[in-house]
Amino acid sequence: KMKASSSPMIEKETPETQRPNTFLRETDDNHSQNSNSNSVRARFEKMIREVQDGVCSAIEAMDQGGKFKEDVWSRPGGGGGISRVLQDGAVWEKAGVNISIVYGVMPPEAYRAANPSQNGNTEPGPVPFFAAGISSVLHPKNPFAPTLHFNYRYFETDAPKDTPGAPRQWWFGGGTDLTPAYIFEEDIKHFHSAQKSTCDKFDASFYPRFKKWCDDYFYIKHRGERRGLGGIFFDDLNDYDQETLLSFATECANTVIPAYIPIIEKRKDMPFTDRHKSWQQLRRGRYVEFNLVYDRGTTFGLKTGGRIESILVSLPLTARWEYDHQPEEGSEEWKLLDACINPKEWI
Amino acid sequence: KMKASSSPMIEKETPETQRPNTFLRETDDNHSQNSNSNSVRARFEKMIREVQDGVCSAIEAMDQGGKFKEDVWSRPGGGGGISRVLQDGAVWEKAGVNISIVYGVMPPEAYRAANPSQNGNTEPGPVPFFAAGISSVLHPKNPFAPTLHFNYRYFETDAPKDTPGAPRQWWFGGGTDLTPAYIFEEDIKHFHSAQKSTCDKFDASFYPRFKKWCDDYFYIKHRGERRGLGGIFFDDLNDYDQETLLSFATECANTVIPAYIPIIEKRKDMPFTDRHKSWQQLRRGRYVEFNLVYDRGTTFGLKTGGRIESILVSLPLTARWEYDHQPEEGSEEWKLLDACINPKEWI
Repeated sequence: KMKASSSPMIEKETPETQRPNTFLRETDDNHSQNSNSNSVRARFEKMIREVQDGVCSAIEAMDQGGKFKEDVWSRPGGGGGISRVLQDGAVWEKAGVNISIVYGVMPPEAYRAANPSQNGNTEPGPVPFFAAGISSVLHPKNPFAPTLHFNYRYFETDAPKDTPGAPRQWWFGGGTDLTPAYIFEEDIKHFHSAQKSTCDKFDASFYPRFKKWCDDYFYIKHRGERRGLGGIFFDDLNDYDQETLLSFATECANTVIPAYIPIIEKRKDMPFTDRHKSWQQLRRGRYVEFNLVYDRGTTFGLKTGGRIESILVSLPLTARWEYDHQPEEGSEEWKLLDACINPKEWI
Repeated sequence: KMKASSSPMIEKETPETQRPNTFLRETDDNHSQNSNSNSVRARFEKMIREVQDGVCSAIEAMDQGGKFKEDVWSRPGGGGGISRVLQDGAVWEKAGVNISIVYGVMPPEAYRAANPSQNGNTEPGPVPFFAAGISSVLHPKNPFAPTLHFNYRYFETDAPKDTPGAPRQWWFGGGTDLTPAYIFEEDIKHFHSAQKSTCDKFDASFYPRFKKWCDDYFYIKHRGERRGLGGIFFDDLNDYDQETLLSFATECANTVIPAYIPIIEKRKDMPFTDRHKSWQQLRRGRYVEFNLVYDRGTTFGLKTGGRIESILVSLPLTARWEYDHQPEEGSEEWKLLDACINPKEWI
């Protein structure tokens, strides 16, 4: 009667004592158009590892108390990752910054989760894939300091085995979005402006398109509200050349620190009451709902047998669910909820 | 790019000021084999409303502080429910006891969630259904006092419109299960013995079969562990006559109070430390993971547009996620986790 939804399709990870120079398979150059070290795979890995170092340094410098704990892991068949988590710091309650390189085989079910637009009636077979990404969620303690999430990833599938000559697919995905419990307009404007500046260097259509995509993506359908106040989000992006998109993803990831850290600087020490803390905890509950029910990366990771602790580090340290909580109309809590229900143009 | 997974297929609920005598449609007797008041639908509704009253009285009597808040609601096309929630009481942090009657049309997607064994390649059309059930989750404050969940439901689908003469389907489902953060063997034995006694009145095969089904059902696949220490669970039960199964569901529901309340009596005032509370909160996090990712009732409710506050009242008031938490081998926390990973025979 119980149906196991699908067996893990990637091997169990094993801890490593040292960071390797690369998590790529040595044989990867057979598949790449370029030499190994210049391949998009290799340069994407280098980029996300540099971003991980930079973001963790900036977080530790501002926290002045918490230190990241690092876990390095690999898989026998290739790939692995570096998970860094700062828990119960002075400023951040939980901050996770992870990179991973995955060689796997998608079960048809996970392929649908990763690629809902291709969810047709044809039953696809298992599809070998390569995925590299950086993923981070930063949950501060102070209820006036917003949560930040960012994730940039590069994805390739192998050519289908039963269709000789059919091309491999590749795409970029990612985004950066802000989830405050209270609105400070200047903060939200600053955050969105930073995203827009980066987008505008590439294509004037990017910011409006990816801002809307973000509002659409982080939608908690059963609540009729968004998780937070958005930012940018894109997925399955392959309508530019790989060089341009690699460069775009890199600049987006490098925008994280200037877009976010100044906001935390301003809010981390603001006095607050139990009421503020309780509202933050309720919004953290919504964060959990989105991530466990809708988030593509989370559901994909859970279905493919990814490293659970790395995937679920996105969940807040603590969260709260009150029955039928309704903020008083016109209150600060109500204003936040209204902006989650009716997305606004911030700039 | 964003695919709305499916539109709500049942109408929006509206609040009622009074409890109606029945939530059934007046036209229901056209569909029933018996007269209206003797139909299985009618008798099942009567049973779950009596059980709701009984359980709420027992909870309030023991809590000696908290009172249930009641919300009555209905839908224009028929059906409705009574939600009762006691929040922040003396003994219980959050206790929800809900009954509902739903007339709806299942989107194919929800039909699959409700009925995974029939998940084939044929794309079913929308299926009209009737569902009645009682659902309850009781989360105590004291970390030595276990959480209880029970749910009993009766389900009918209309005959498929495109297949004249094809029969309607009906089935019973439900169960009662216990989720402690710490093991007191006498408590778990008492709880399972109560389930077994009730099962044995009907069929000696019921307890072993439904005990295993419960262990299998409440499995958090991505963790490789169960939510708690089980009890009984069954679904799609229609291999006995309706009278027998109605009687069985009734006796199971009437077993809730004697199986659970004596345990709370013993544990509600036990002294505890921050360590105990923190472990309880981590286990509550697992509860959230199971309910949002795997629970059939929750995912079915979210997909069909059920009353969100009633569905999610099962979530604890507070929960916690620590990165890579591992209880020390041999500790009390480890023993609980071990029993969640390796289900035991308690009697």
